[in-house]
Order: sequence, then C-alpha cells, then structure tokens
Amino acid sequence: MQLSTVAKNLNLKFYGEDCEILSMNDLSNAKSDELSFALGKKFSSSLENSKASAFLIPKELIDYLPKSSSYILCDDVSISMAYASKLFSPKLIDNSLKEAQISKSAYIDSRANIEKGVLIGDNSTVMAGSYIGKDVKIGSNTIIHANVTIYHGCVIGDNCIVHSGTVIGADGFGFSHTKTGEHIKIYQNGNTVIEDDVEIGASCAIDRAAFGSTIIKKGVKFDNFIHIAHNCEIGEYSLFVAQSGVGGSTKLGRNCVVSGQSAFSDHLMIAPFNTFTARSGITKSISQSHKVFSGYPLMEHRAWRRLQSKITKLLS
Amino acid sequence: MQLSTVAKNLNLKFYGEDCEILSMNDLSNAKSDELSFALGKKFSSSLENSKASAFLIPKELIDYLPKSSSYILCDDVSISMAYASKLFSPKLIDNSLKEAQISKSAYIDSRANIEKGVLIGDNSTVMAGSYIGKDVKIGSNTIIHANVTIYHGCVIGDNCIVHSGTVIGADGFGFSHTKTGEHIKIYQNGNTVIEDDVEIGASCAIDRAAFGSTIIKKGVKFDNFIHIAHNCEIGEYSLFVAQSGVGGSTKLGRNCVVSGQSAFSDHLMIAPFNTFTARSGITKSISQSHKVFSGYPLMEHRAWRRLQSKITKLLS
Amino acid sequence: MQLSTVAKNLNLKFYGEDCEILSMNDLSNAKSDELSFALGKKFSSSLENSKASAFLIPKELIDYLPKSSSYILCDDVSISMAYASKLFSPKLIDNSLKEAQISKSAYIDSRANIEKGVLIGDNSTVMAGSYIGKDVKIGSNTIIHANVTIYHGCVIGDNCIVHSGTVIGADGFGFSHTKTGEHIKIYQNGNTVIEDDVEIGASCAIDRAAFGSTIIKKGVKFDNFIHIAHNCEIGEYSLFVAQSGVGGSTKLGRNCVVSGQSAFSDHLMIAPFNTFTARSGITKSISQSHKVFSGYPLMEHRAWRRLQSKITKLLS
Repeated sequence: MQLSTVAKNLNLKFYGEDCEILSMNDLSNAKSDELSFALGKKFSSSLENSKASAFLIPKELIDYLPKSSSYILCDDVSISMAYASKLFSPKLIDNSLKEAQISKSAYIDSRANIEKGVLIGDNSTVMAGSYIGKDVKIGSNTIIHANVTIYHGCVIGDNCIVHSGTVIGADGFGFSHTKTGEHIKIYQNGNTVIEDDVEIGASCAIDRAAFGSTIIKKGVKFDNFIHIAHNCEIGEYSLFVAQSGVGGSTKLGRNCVVSGQSAFSDHLMIAPFNTFTARSGITKSISQSHKVFSGYPLMEHRAWRRLQSKITKLLS
Repeated sequence: MQLSTVAKNLNLKFYGEDCEILSMNDLSNAKSDELSFALGKKFSSSLENSKASAFLIPKELIDYLPKSSSYILCDDVSISMAYASKLFSPKLIDNSLKEAQISKSAYIDSRANIEKGVLIGDNSTVMAGSYIGKDVKIGSNTIIHANVTIYHGCVIGDNCIVHSGTVIGADGFGFSHTKTGEHIKIYQNGNTVIEDDVEIGASCAIDRAAFGSTIIKKGVKFDNFIHIAHNCEIGEYSLFVAQSGVGGSTKLGRNCVVSGQSAFSDHLMIAPFNTFTARSGITKSISQSHKVFSGYPLMEHRAWRRLQSKITKLLS
Repeated sequence: MQLSTVAKNLNLKFYGEDCEILSMNDLSNAKSDELSFALGKKFSSSLENSKASAFLIPKELIDYLPKSSSYILCDDVSISMAYASKLFSPKLIDNSLKEAQISKSAYIDSRANIEKGVLIGDNSTVMAGSYIGKDVKIGSNTIIHANVTIYHGCVIGDNCIVHSGTVIGADGFGFSHTKTGEHIKIYQNGNTVIEDDVEIGASCAIDRAAFGSTIIKKGVKFDNFIHIAHNCEIGEYSLFVAQSGVGGSTKLGRNCVVSGQSAFSDHLMIAPFNTFTARSGITKSISQSHKVFSGYPLMEHRAWRRLQSKITKLLS
C-alpha cells in the first residue's frame, strides 16, 4: 500500500516522498519497507535510529526523523497507529492461495478444517475438528489433537504435540484508548511460532504478535490453561504448570520452571534457569539465574518461607 | 404450561386459580405470566411486591402473597424451584424452527455448524467449526473465529470479534442442595447478550443467566480465559486482562479496568471508572469511582503498597 | 509386547525369563502382566511387595526384586521408564475397531465426530462439533454439548452434562528430565472416568492418568475452567467454583467445596466434607473434616480472618 493511501485512509497529511509500505512495525524492528510510529518524546532516539522508511509522528518529533524519511503528522499517534494497523490486516480467508500441501505420510482427518496455503510435513497428524488457518506451516512428526485452533500464518515445528481446545495465534490484547474512554483495536498482524519438540496442554492460548512473532522455543512443555500474550518469547526447555500466564512482550530464558497459577507482568526480561513456585507474581525483570522465587510481591523462596513464618507469628 | 401441570410434576398441591405459566423468574423481575419463588422469611417483602402470577412458597409465607395470586406449597422451596426450572428448559434442538436467516453479504463457512432459527446480519463472518445454537442472533460486521461455541438464544451485537475456543451461553453454575449433600441442577433458562463493539479473547466462558440475561455492554474488551458467571453485567468499555473472573450476579459500571488473575465475588455492585491491579480479590461492593485497588483482601493501591513495604520489613 | 522387545527398544539388557507385557504401572498398582519401575532406594520396599512380573531398576535395587521376577537394568530408570511408556501408547486412530454402537434413542448430531469402538447409551445427546475418541463409553441420559473433546478410552457415566470447550482425557503433564535439561515425555496410557450425575462446566480440562484412571466421582459439579491433573480422584458430590485446579494424584473426599481460583498441590489426601474459600492454596494433606480453610499458606478460615485484621493493623 502506498504511504499516500495510508494517509488518505487516516484523513491525515503525509510529507516527503510517497513509497510502498508492506507492513507496520515498532521503531527498533522496522525494516525499510515498513511503516513505524513514535508515540512521544520518550521515543526520540529510537526514532533517530529506526530503519523504517515512513513514520507516524507527532509534530514535536519532526527534528528526530532519520534523513530523507517520509512521515504522517498525527494529533494522536496511538489512535492513528491503531487505525493504520487495520489497513495491513490480512483477510482471514483467501481463495487465491494454493491448495494445502500435505505430505503423503501425514494423517489429516477428513473432518479437520484445513485452509488454503497450508504446509504439513511427514508423519504429522491432524485430528477431527481442528482448524488450521491459511498459510500455517506444520513440521514433521507433529500431532495436532482434535478441536485445536491454529490461526493463519502461524508456524509449528517438528515433533510437537498440541492438545485439544488449545488456540494458537489468536489476536493479542492490544488497544489504543480515546480520551472519552473507548478502545480502538490495534490489529495483530504478526504470528506465533512454536519451535520443535514443544508440547502444549489442553486449552492453552498463545496469542499472535502485534508485529513480528510470539515465540515458544525448542523443547518447551506447557500444562493446561497456559496464557501467553503477544510478542512473548519462552526460552528453550522451560516448563509451565497449569493456569499460569505471561504478559505481553515478556521474555524468559531457557529452562525456567513456572509452577501453577503464576503470572508475569508485561515487558520483563527473565534470566534462564530460574524456578518460580506456585502462584508467583513476577512484576520485575530478573537478571540472576539458578534461583528459586516465590510470592507476590516476588522474593527469593527462602525469604518467602521466613516471611510466612513471621506472618504466622502475628497470630500468636 | 399450566400451573396445575407444574404442581403435578413436583408432586405438590397448588392453591388459587390455575393459570398459564411461560417461564420462571426471581421475585423482583417476574412478569405476570411467570412463576416465581420465595425461599424464606427474608423474602417476605419482595414477595408482597412481586408481579408474578404464581409462586413456590413455604407455609410460613402464605400471609405475604400478593392478592389473588396462586401458589404451590413446598416443604423445601429451593429444591422444588430447581425441579420446576427443568420444566421450562428449552430443547437444545428444535427442527420446527425456521431455517437460519443469513444476510447475503455475510460469510458463513460451510464447515460452521448453524442451527435453525439463527439470524446473522450484513458482512458478518462465521469461521469453520463454530457452533451457533438455535435462535442465536448475530449483528452486522461481527467476526466469529473458528471453533467458537454460542449456545441457543444468545445475542451478539454489531462489530464484535469473538476468538476461538470461547463459549458464550453455557449454563451458569446453579444448584440446590439436599440435606444429604446432593446437588439438584437449577436449569439456566436465561441467555447471554453481547452488545456492540465487544471483543472477546480466546477461550473465554460467559455463562447464560438463570433467568433474564448475562450482559456484556458496548465496547467491552476481554483478553483470554475470562470467566463471567450467570447474571453478571459488565459495564461499557470495561477491560479485563487474562485469567480474571466475575462471580454470579455481580455488576460492574462502565470503564472498569481489571488486571490479570483478578476475581470478583458474587452479588456485588462495582461503581464505574475503577481500576483493579493484577490478582485483586474483590469481595465487597464498591460505591466510589476513579480509584485504584489492589490485593486480597482488597484495599486502595497506595495502602497495599505501604502494606507490602511494612510486611517486607518483618524480614529484617 | 515381550519384555525382550522392550529391552531391545531401550537398548538395554533384560535378566530373567522373557514374558508378555500388556502395559506399565507403578509398583503398588501393577498386576502380573505389567511392567513396573523403581526409581531408587526409596522404593525398595514397594519393589519387594510389587505384583508386577518385570521391572526397570537401577543396579542398587537388585536385592529387593520379588522372587523369580524379570528385570531390565537401567542407568537412569526415570528416562528409561519414559521411553518405555511410549511403547505402550495406543494409536489415536484404529480402523480395525468395530463401528460405534449407539442406542437408537440417543441423539448424535451428524456433525459430531465419533470414532470407532464408541458406546453411547439411551437418550444421550452429542451435539455438533464434539469429538468422541475411539473406545469412549458414554452412559444414558448424558448430554455432551457442542465442541467438547473426549479422548480415546475415557468413560462418562449416566445423567452427566458436559459443557462446550471442555477437554476430557488429554495427556497429563508428565516428563522425565535429562541431565542436560531436556524433558522426555511419559506417555499417559491411563484414562479419565466420569461417574454418574456429574456436570462439568465450559472449558474444563480433566487429564487422563499416566497409569490407571483419573476419577471424578458421582454427583460432582464443576464450574468453568477447572483443571484436574492426571491420576486425581475427586470425591462424590464435591463442588468446584471457576478457575480452580488440582495437582497430579491428589485425592479429595466427598462433599468438598472448593471456591474460585483455589489450587491443590500434587500427591495430597484431603478428607471429606471440607470447604475451601476463594483462592485457597492447599499444599499439605488434610485429615480433619467439616472445617473451613482459607489462604495461601492455608489455615483455618477463622485464623485467616484474624490474621488479615492483624495485617491491616500494620498499616496504622
């Protein structure tokens, strides 16, 4: 889509040369055919260093634009960004795509619902009632149990098992907020990538990214009811026990162990090889490894145990 | 159904004139063609003011009956009410209904399961594997993603998005309990109403009402795994982050923000424009607005932070 | 499968007489045609008393073997056990089974997905989109709502109701861990048994057992989003409110009441007739009955209330 068309759709003016825009992305990840956005002064240096060819910016950031970049001036960048995201949202159904390409050694139940453009590798299984959205790629030796849903464009590796009721690639929870309290959807145009050797329990939900990918790395194992928000990365061989959740853009290192009903806030960085006991509430990034944490607010497990015994003493 | 037939089914006697009963309802919401019930003395004044034409009551409440109303005398009103609710429970499948009426501009996947009596508006989409129960109404420009379930008689507005795995209109959790510890199902004969501009994440469950409607108001946005019990009302433009839940009959005002893993008890009234931080546990009604609350037991966020720092000091 | 074949698949040596092995089980439940395993010295007396005909053991346990039993020597019994479990894992699809046998009075929607070997009793209903795996047994007068998933070999009793989105019999969360941090799947070759008069809300997940059965006993009622791990037993007439979970092998007695967002650790024994208020966290077995518990760490409800008031006083 031409930048001029984007501007026209937003009822805003564009400046600089017109150019072809393929998609949107945040300032640090945007490539030269992408449109990015800077919400305010806080983003001035990221704006200066961005590789995007065009930007949605407020007036006050004009001086920070990379040389020879085009831009659209916005009164409220957050709202304009949300409206623009809709322009790049793909159709859910696209009959112009090629027929699904399925290995002859794969077992695809005739009652599974497979869209066009899908690729499925050797010896993989898709059971009845599962929905495989357009352009999904599934590797080899992977089992998709009955009544699983995989949204368009997601990628599942080799030797994975996905249990029934699980939803991979639904929209992340992203909205811009008007001054009068309404919420404008930020279309989630990224995807979800599940690497090799991952097992996902029943009724999990792993959202697609707003831009780029939500990534579940090699060898991760999820119990039931795990919630993974958009743009998360879950490190290799991590384990999640039932009913735990991870907020948007949080990244865990490898071999973390997360016990039941735990939750992580958004935008955290968690070092590898950490353990979180049941119902941990993690609200800050963690740079140390090989520790055991507990509680909400979070503390080291030993301190938490000491605290509990002190609290109990209040009763006497 | 005639009141006499209800009585006969319950093996109980009715008094007063026989009359046609269309459905059941609680004392304050019952209309003149409905059967209501009063569980004990606590309900004597609601009974006096009820517009129902017939009642299930214990002996001790005879004096509080509205003039010229009919009644069925019960040893255990709670149990009789549960058995009576079954008599008014609609069939799940009804082939006598009209064929579904679907706008020509709607896209209904041929692999979606649509029952009779359904109405679907312009430009709406229903993806493969979704189940639309009998008599469901879906407005215009609404997207029902793959493998969604909408039970009979529910209503979805315009411009809504419902993500995969979500269940709208399953039975609320309602039982009467015998003296020997068994549970008798109270049939949930109400429905769920989703107003316009609502987005519901993956794998949410929004139960139908026992009587009347569970209502999700205009512009509400739900993340994944939100549980809404029967007869709740969620105010306009409220936001719910993942894994939160609301107990039966609780009503939230507009623009409440509920962070992850929070929960509300049943039968609460929550004023509009309040914010609840992650894992809040709300057990009492709230009449103030524009506040931020935290913790379980709940307190204002500032007090909670102060408390956490005091608790941490116990460790030193 | 012959024990010699098991050993060959594991690249290990077997000692004693070769014998036919039908399945695997833990030491105390294994029958004479089963293979069992002893992970270390802790299990020496269970090993001595086991009725299994063959064992996976480490060298140090040779002296504790029951007389005339065969065995496979393992460097790492846990890992060998995981690999062996795969050998006994049934095929998901088996076209050699008999056609499903369905009572003439049952209503099976033509859009439900029923595998071979299924038995369905009188007057039962299976709605559209539901998946009934091979060899599942469903009793009489049971309703399986739309888009439910029941895995192979599970058993559902009479007069049950299962709401949409629920998954019965997905694999329990069981893995053996290598020294380098990978996780080897322990195949879950047991099943889930739902007894009579059970109602299960929307989007619950009740895992199948590793060996034997996960059992939900007569008259139990589950709200939405209940997680039951492998090998649990939930006692008769127990009630679970939404978003609660039970860890592996935990057993509750009859008529327990578990309020919302509560959770039980694994391997607990909970006496009957106990009540747990919202968000209880139960980490130890309970031998008393007719008590009310709260909090995490758990304590009697009265103590918890006293504690909360003392904690609040810290603020003044």
